Amino acid sequence: MGHLERLRGPADLRSLDPGELDELATEIRDFLVTKVSRTGGHLGPNLGVVELTIALHRVFDSPREPIVFDTGHQSYVHKMLTGRADGFDRLKQEGGLSGYPSRSESEHDVVENQHASTSLSYADGLAKAFSIRGEDRTVVAVIGDGALTGGMAWEALNNIAAGQDRPVVIVVNDNGRSYTPTVGGLAEHLTALRTNPRYEQVLDVVKTRLNGVRGVGPAVYDALHAMKKGMKDALAPQGLFEDLGLKYVGPVDGHDRVALEQALRQAKRFGGPVIVHAITRKGFGYDHAEQHEEDQMHGPGPFDVLTGAEKPKGRQWSDVFAEEMVALGAERPDLVGITAAMLYPVGLDRFAAAYPDRVFDVGIAEQHATTSAAGLALGGLHPVFAVYATFLNRAFDQILMDVAMHRLGVTFVLDRSGVTGPDGASHNGMWDLSFLQIVPGLRLAAPRDATRLRELLREAVEVADAPTVVRYPKGGPPVDLDAVDRVGGLDVLARDGARDVLLVGVGSMATTAVDVGKRLVAQGIGVTVVDPRWVKPYDEAVVDLARGHRLVVTVEDNGVAGGCGAALLQLLAERRVATPVRIHGIPQEFLDHASRDSILERVGLTPQTIARQVVEDIAALPDPGALTPPVGSDR
Amino acid sequence: MGHLERLRGPADLRSLDPGELDELATEIRDFLVTKVSRTGGHLGPNLGVVELTIALHRVFDSPREPIVFDTGHQSYVHKMLTGRADGFDRLKQEGGLSGYPSRSESEHDVVENQHASTSLSYADGLAKAFSIRGEDRTVVAVIGDGALTGGMAWEALNNIAAGQDRPVVIVVNDNGRSYTPTVGGLAEHLTALRTNPRYEQVLDVVKTRLNGVRGVGPAVYDALHAMKKGMKDALAPQGLFEDLGLKYVGPVDGHDRVALEQALRQAKRFGGPVIVHAITRKGFGYDHAEQHEEDQMHGPGPFDVLTGAEKPKGRQWSDVFAEEMVALGAERPDLVGITAAMLYPVGLDRFAAAYPDRVFDVGIAEQHATTSAAGLALGGLHPVFAVYATFLNRAFDQILMDVAMHRLGVTFVLDRSGVTGPDGASHNGMWDLSFLQIVPGLRLAAPRDATRLRELLREAVEVADAPTVVRYPKGGPPVDLDAVDRVGGLDVLARDGARDVLLVGVGSMATTAVDVGKRLVAQGIGVTVVDPRWVKPYDEAVVDLARGHRLVVTVEDNGVAGGCGAALLQLLAERRVATPVRIHGIPQEFLDHASRDSILERVGLTPQTIARQVVEDIAALPDPGALTPPVGSDR
Repeated sequence: MGHLERLRGPADLRSLDPGELDELATEIRDFLVTKVSRTGGHLGPNLGVVELTIALHRVFDSPREPIVFDTGHQSYVHKMLTGRADGFDRLKQEGGLSGYPSRSESEHDVVENQHASTSLSYADGLAKAFSIRGEDRTVVAVIGDGALTGGMAWEALNNIAAGQDRPVVIVVNDNGRSYTPTVGGLAEHLTALRTNPRYEQVLDVVKTRLNGVRGVGPAVYDALHAMKKGMKDALAPQGLFEDLGLKYVGPVDGHDRVALEQALRQAKRFGGPVIVHAITRKGFGYDHAEQHEEDQMHGPGPFDVLTGAEKPKGRQWSDVFAEEMVALGAERPDLVGITAAMLYPVGLDRFAAAYPDRVFDVGIAEQHATTSAAGLALGGLHPVFAVYATFLNRAFDQILMDVAMHRLGVTFVLDRSGVTGPDGASHNGMWDLSFLQIVPGLRLAAPRDATRLRELLREAVEVADAPTVVRYPKGGPPVDLDAVDRVGGLDVLARDGARDVLLVGVGSMATTAVDVGKRLVAQGIGVTVVDPRWVKPYDEAVVDLARGHRLVVTVEDNGVAGGCGAALLQLLAERRVATPVRIHGIPQEFLDHASRDSILERVGLTPQTIARQVVEDIAALPDPGALTPPVGSDR
Repeated sequence: MGHLERLRGPADLRSLDPGELDELATEIRDFLVTKVSRTGGHLGPNLGVVELTIALHRVFDSPREPIVFDTGHQSYVHKMLTGRADGFDRLKQEGGLSGYPSRSESEHDVVENQHASTSLSYADGLAKAFSIRGEDRTVVAVIGDGALTGGMAWEALNNIAAGQDRPVVIVVNDNGRSYTPTVGGLAEHLTALRTNPRYEQVLDVVKTRLNGVRGVGPAVYDALHAMKKGMKDALAPQGLFEDLGLKYVGPVDGHDRVALEQALRQAKRFGGPVIVHAITRKGFGYDHAEQHEEDQMHGPGPFDVLTGAEKPKGRQWSDVFAEEMVALGAERPDLVGITAAMLYPVGLDRFAAAYPDRVFDVGIAEQHATTSAAGLALGGLHPVFAVYATFLNRAFDQILMDVAMHRLGVTFVLDRSGVTGPDGASHNGMWDLSFLQIVPGLRLAAPRDATRLRELLREAVEVADAPTVVRYPKGGPPVDLDAVDRVGGLDVLARDGARDVLLVGVGSMATTAVDVGKRLVAQGIGVTVVDPRWVKPYDEAVVDLARGHRLVVTVEDNGVAGGCGAALLQLLAERRVATPVRIHGIPQEFLDHASRDSILERVGLTPQTIARQVVEDIAALPDPGALTPPVGSDR
């Protein structure tokens, strides 16, 4: 029976001796690699924080001293140390362990959001609350160097520094990367802090001595470290954190548990805001992760432990985008790409390889991505910002004010829109079709297949005086679905029988709509199935089509509130079309993690469920003769 | 004829001698005070940048070298120097000069957005575009120390630093305040930079010598400055800007034109990213502004030049909020206030005076305001974040993920919602009723008068497991409008005649709806007028009310796309209610500056226009007997 199995909670960590703690770290790494190889998950980041997480739980008394993990994908070790090792067999599966902190799982989990750079703001709020309530509790935030490039982190640092009597320990988990290497002035500065050559020398001296005294007790180690610290104070550059008024401790080797504990204890004793700068290595301890070129096995699917090889994924939507961008880049020298620290995941790596001067990784900074895109457009270029749909929320104001109000040609390409599934509530891209409806002048396209993605991307980058958006889901595109007709700007995908139901399938849901249509026809209900292609603004042809049917049914992979169905309903009301509209989409609530298919099933976004509902709706309609006024009479 | 009148454009500035430039500065200040005293406008900030703006236009060649003003309320001097002095008689009036940069006015205006902290991102984008296009053009951004507390500015600094070959001159206009004193670690750091006592001493030496040599030529001055510079390099602390990899020049006296020009020329010569740190005084040169306690006459209405006194405004919505917050603060020790650098304008100053430890000014940082509020709520308090409605856009993702997904009790109080008018497109609060509809669990109230504001604020802070929002417009509340009945959670404001029209008036538009109702009754149309009080979620009672009328008419002071009318339309469609809905709101477009009344008139949000439309709509409805199915049959 290993140490991990015996752990009932973080308090048990405090009675382990150094040797046992080292054994525990090894057990945890083995466990991580074995379990994640079966389920998939965030491997690299968690391998990098094994010693750090052990040290945190030995020094701080969670949950009294809450530990807030930024983004949260590096909380696996924390989960193991807080009694949830058993859950890893069903990691990220329906009803199983969440891949992120989850308050329903444990009192040790504080924050569930998986969007980056929020931890410091939470920590500031918690510290203020404890202070007002007169509670003496240190707040700990663990944030990666990548997340520090997000503007929220800056806002929070500025405020945390203003509260010198509030104990906040900010652990910067500096591995030099979020997905890919962290960029910009901050990254350079962190590198300067950790690569001061004289400091490195001292570190080596200390390490050499320690190697000579294996089994050395904490007291000796402390003394050596104090020496190092003394020298460091004289050697290390004054960093920007200290300029901001934040005490700085470090850099400390993030895989040296003793050094880490010492730094954390020192920070805790200080009783005010302190940065602890820990240098870690993503993927540490598993060769295939450490040597993984792209992202140190940041978040692989199931893989072979011996080779580190993942099952090939097949052709993804992002592959189609990547290819078309490279082709467009050759035709349009004014086309530039932007990514917010996700060059590979969004597929801009191929564009970057072809046109290295025309792609910008701005860090985890969607606001800047958007407004610098506005600047690029003002300067005569056409930027394409490729981003996961849910992260675009961060740039709502910038899309509205900086791009749309200035009537600038910027294209947003939204990957992973709709239900994504296993990554939980905050990764679902179920908001964009709603909040983007609000933006004046913005044009929004939802391609139904690979061919339409190519077409619509081309149409989007042709628009020079307004923002355009192209959105598609996670995974691979369905088999191409050709139109049988074109009415105005709409593709007619099927037309069969009487004009009973107009089925409007948005983007990837067009395939579902066609399937619904077949089921209805089988029951003697006539259908027209259309893909609007551009869902904002709708082509006016949809108005006459709607008027000519008894029922309009919309299907979209987005929250129902204010989405494409709602926009069509509103358009038809404005045009005085009385045909009832039934909207099928995601209920407006936060979705628990599960597979995409399982969630679609649960929320009723399957052909069977939709078809059954339409049959009921049609049956409940009043007699067509009595209800439908002659065309034109209702205008 | 003064210098100002003779100026045809910035090029003319370059031929003026030092004496003439000093005379010009005096003329500009006189002009500013005189003109703004008649129209109202951003006086203090513009008085602070007279020398800076002259220096900018002498050193840089706008528009080839674009000057991007952050927030833009300090662009009056820029407007005068670019040929628009004549326009100040109609400043901020319909068809007159905008109070912010405006691309339709001048090729020298680049960015129109008035939300803070965007300039650096625009500048980064412009510089990247010029670089890719092979154009040798320096980009200038002028940003206040207040705007630097916004996260976007950090994201941009991080990126600008990454482009060492791209010439970007960032002028930090440091007056220590946005509206009120700038707070946080950054402000402390800027103070440290400018108050290094040894540096001050050198500055004095230089000044003393200069005073002894009146009429000194630039060469002598340059030499003296070089001496100062040399000493400064040895004395000044290494600042965070240099840590980030940005060359730092300064601090320089922002009212010393010669020193400014020298610093700007030095920065321009560098050919990469440079910070020029200019110390200015808000309100400089007009005693009443300099000595104005609250905000140095940041943005007064018309005022008396001799006394600096503004006409009293009368009782504002924010006064009612301020009073009720103070009362609530006494009853609820867990209540805390948050402001994003607008303590006075939002009315939290009285709460701060009563409970100084329970209010937090977080800087111009709506993201942090929101997520630190989530932290405060996790820590057991109930935060109230009071903010102008349009600025809440910045926190969409944080409201959604950090507050709503975590089911936390945070109250947002939105001042200046709806049409605000003279400040132009980006100040209108016409987005919140739409984007907030998307947020699961969020509850949204729109009080129609002062009494309802008090009531709804109290109801809002009672909600402990979801975000709540209370929104009201600019100006003063109307006379209290008491309900004649209560149906479910809805206030019935009038009920007269047959059940023809259900008028739903949202918030301040309830008064308008009552007026519409009277006009309809006068024409023999029966009405029920309701104020839903809570517009998200709607009380279910509205469904039966709607079913019982022939037409539903909604009136809101918000964009029509996805607003309250649209949400009601969607709810009724979901409940299978066939009653047609007509939505009256602001057309979904960016509104040019004009008075609130004039804009409401223009967009048809007046009782006359709405009543006329309803009469037409009622007349166009099919015969009631034929159309309305019996209650219940359509479910």
